[in-house]
Amino acid sequence: MSRLDVRHIVVTPIAFPDPPLLNAAGVHEPWALRTIVEVYADGGLVGLGETYGDAAHLVLVEKAAGALIGLDAFNLNDLRSRVAAAIGVVDAPDRHGLTGASSAEKTLARVVSPFEVACLDVQGHATERPVADLLGGRIRDRVPFSAYLFYKWAAHPGAEPDEWGEALDAEGIVRQARGMIDRYGFGSIKLKGGVFHPDEEIAAIEALREAFPEHPLRLDPNCAWTPATSRRVAERTTGLLEYLEDPTEGLAGMAEVARSASMPLATNMCVIGFGDIAESVRRGSVGVVLSDHHYWGGLRASAELAAICRTFGIGVSMHSNSHLGISLAAMVHLGAAVPNLSYAADTHTPWQCGADVVAETLTFVDGSVAVPTGPGLGVALDRDALARMHADYLRCGVTERNDTGYMRSIDPAYERKRPRW
Amino acid sequence: MSRLDVRHIVVTPIAFPDPPLLNAAGVHEPWALRTIVEVYADGGLVGLGETYGDAAHLVLVEKAAGALIGLDAFNLNDLRSRVAAAIGVVDAPDRHGLTGASSAEKTLARVVSPFEVACLDVQGHATERPVADLLGGRIRDRVPFSAYLFYKWAAHPGAEPDEWGEALDAEGIVRQARGMIDRYGFGSIKLKGGVFHPDEEIAAIEALREAFPEHPLRLDPNCAWTPATSRRVAERTTGLLEYLEDPTEGLAGMAEVARSASMPLATNMCVIGFGDIAESVRRGSVGVVLSDHHYWGGLRASAELAAICRTFGIGVSMHSNSHLGISLAAMVHLGAAVPNLSYAADTHTPWQCGADVVAETLTFVDGSVAVPTGPGLGVALDRDALARMHADYLRCGVTERNDTGYMRSIDPAYERKRPRW
Repeated sequence: MSRLDVRHIVVTPIAFPDPPLLNAAGVHEPWALRTIVEVYADGGLVGLGETYGDAAHLVLVEKAAGALIGLDAFNLNDLRSRVAAAIGVVDAPDRHGLTGASSAEKTLARVVSPFEVACLDVQGHATERPVADLLGGRIRDRVPFSAYLFYKWAAHPGAEPDEWGEALDAEGIVRQARGMIDRYGFGSIKLKGGVFHPDEEIAAIEALREAFPEHPLRLDPNCAWTPATSRRVAERTTGLLEYLEDPTEGLAGMAEVARSASMPLATNMCVIGFGDIAESVRRGSVGVVLSDHHYWGGLRASAELAAICRTFGIGVSMHSNSHLGISLAAMVHLGAAVPNLSYAADTHTPWQCGADVVAETLTFVDGSVAVPTGPGLGVALDRDALARMHADYLRCGVTERNDTGYMRSIDPAYERKRPRW
Repeated sequence: MSRLDVRHIVVTPIAFPDPPLLNAAGVHEPWALRTIVEVYADGGLVGLGETYGDAAHLVLVEKAAGALIGLDAFNLNDLRSRVAAAIGVVDAPDRHGLTGASSAEKTLARVVSPFEVACLDVQGHATERPVADLLGGRIRDRVPFSAYLFYKWAAHPGAEPDEWGEALDAEGIVRQARGMIDRYGFGSIKLKGGVFHPDEEIAAIEALREAFPEHPLRLDPNCAWTPATSRRVAERTTGLLEYLEDPTEGLAGMAEVARSASMPLATNMCVIGFGDIAESVRRGSVGVVLSDHHYWGGLRASAELAAICRTFGIGVSMHSNSHLGISLAAMVHLGAAVPNLSYAADTHTPWQCGADVVAETLTFVDGSVAVPTGPGLGVALDRDALARMHADYLRCGVTERNDTGYMRSIDPAYERKRPRW
């Protein structure tokens, strides 16, 4: 195996049904988008990657794919250089505004990611080793995830109610938690907040604590609050929250809240690239970084992030957007090999209601996913599902996630505000 | 390849001739010690590692070896856990005092290192891939090294002069540099200082600058100076030095010097473990870390160190003790795969005068070593040389590096002082 060259890459945008989950920017549209990457290498080996499906990102992913033919799948440094040269210095921000400030460095990391994961998958098949082994070897056989609760409507307007039903108050949230924990056994709970007045969301946290006395709890309002509001919520949730996630915007505001908060502040909005870390450390802005291989540049870069966090006494958890089984497998391999995965990871998997592009989706038992022991990521494409989801992409009319626009199409008076309270 | 288990490990202490190189702690003894590790795994694969040979360290390496039988050579995380359990919480400081404060964490990293390198070598043979590919892939095909100059005697007392001759003043140092650069083509120069009064060492640097107008220059007195002396030397060498290495002891003293120095301060004495980094960043103690896989815990840990340095705007170079060809190969693979190897690396190779345990020592051309393209580290044991060097170990009577004791055996009035000036 002197080289293991990439021969061919297939990039397929797909869409799958998404429930009406509420957040600080609006509400999830009926269709969520992803892009599936298949990397074909010498010897008939194929590796899989999964990334965002927004139009501007998709264009960059396609441009990058063209530059990777002939890449040695073992040279991940060369992969990055080729992608950088192919896309140039370009800043493709998310329009939905649920991630922090964008930059060219961060855009590059996002485009690199699905190919890095796919090349690791190829390497795993070539060496007959699980990806976790290529990241240093498994430290745990199961990776824990948390129940990720959302305020939500019973259904998209005009549609039938989904299986999870309505959750617009503390009672609905507790019911949702109960359903999710009964089904998957999650041992931690995260509530997506920033939807209702902070008092209502505190009430939901209190209700969850009463219903689940032993489950660590987290609250994430996606920067919906001012520093003053954040401090007040932090004070009122002392002893209740494992961490408070992105209460307010920016490293300065987070540092201001962190100084008085009793619990660590977590983030996937103010520390989202290596360029954000030094200032965060200097200011003491965050106590937990929610890593996400989709925007940190892949699994190896995420492991480097974890090493940095370990060195600076910062905790590590994992962030999730709506995703499918390739990303879940990638998260599980990373989670298996990173010593300091300090907290159960987030996942949207339950919200996808069984839809997937992989033949056998990894399953949650007692809230954890067993680390695959087969070669590579340990998941295989379901080609019928991929074709169906690609057809859905073509017909659904969504080309860019826009939670605010969708909300305004239902409630024209809705305004995007950050901070809102 | 479901597992690749370690079946057998051979640990061999060796000794090889070392010239009388002077430093802040005394002078190199006639014999330098190393320990060679051979890791035999399933399928008849063998991996090589090289580490220190001091008695206390050797005991720990042997203890660790016993705990690694049955280890999957792909599970480097498990390797570390097994070594930690085997040696317990133990702090084995260097007696020679040329490294910084020791700790249990640092001792563990030193014991893990040769086995980590050997397991990567095994992985490379199993996958038919150079170790650089297992570290993310080569970024460069050649890794640059610097000419490492020492004040030295012509010979050990009672012995014949070695091929490098005497160097006890600026003229001798320039002559030594000329010989080394003529032979190996090095493009950077480092002078080991801390031997003579700082004015004499500044004069040597000035003479080197005159003789080699284009070569970046470095000076390393091994903490022989007070912060005040260090500031004075830094001022007088402004415009002359690429970096000033470990002028004074400790993160506080280094920070004091760094505040006024025009050149970056480099270190292999105050940032020598992950636990030192946060305080160094907070204080601004160093601008360059000289990584060394022998004490940072192996090649992957060194790559993590490089990622941390990149994130915090700190340069990376490579430190060297007296070493042989296994370590040189390991340094070259790491240097090939680390994007931010900002400076030419140190090596003692020229001082070993051709002695080696590997069959074909990697060679310097234009000051650089070509990255091996074969599987693993790309070097093979010379078993005759190993046997000979082991016999030398048994008969030489040295069991621990002690530059000060050896100097005092020659000059009973010699005193170890830090700082000396």
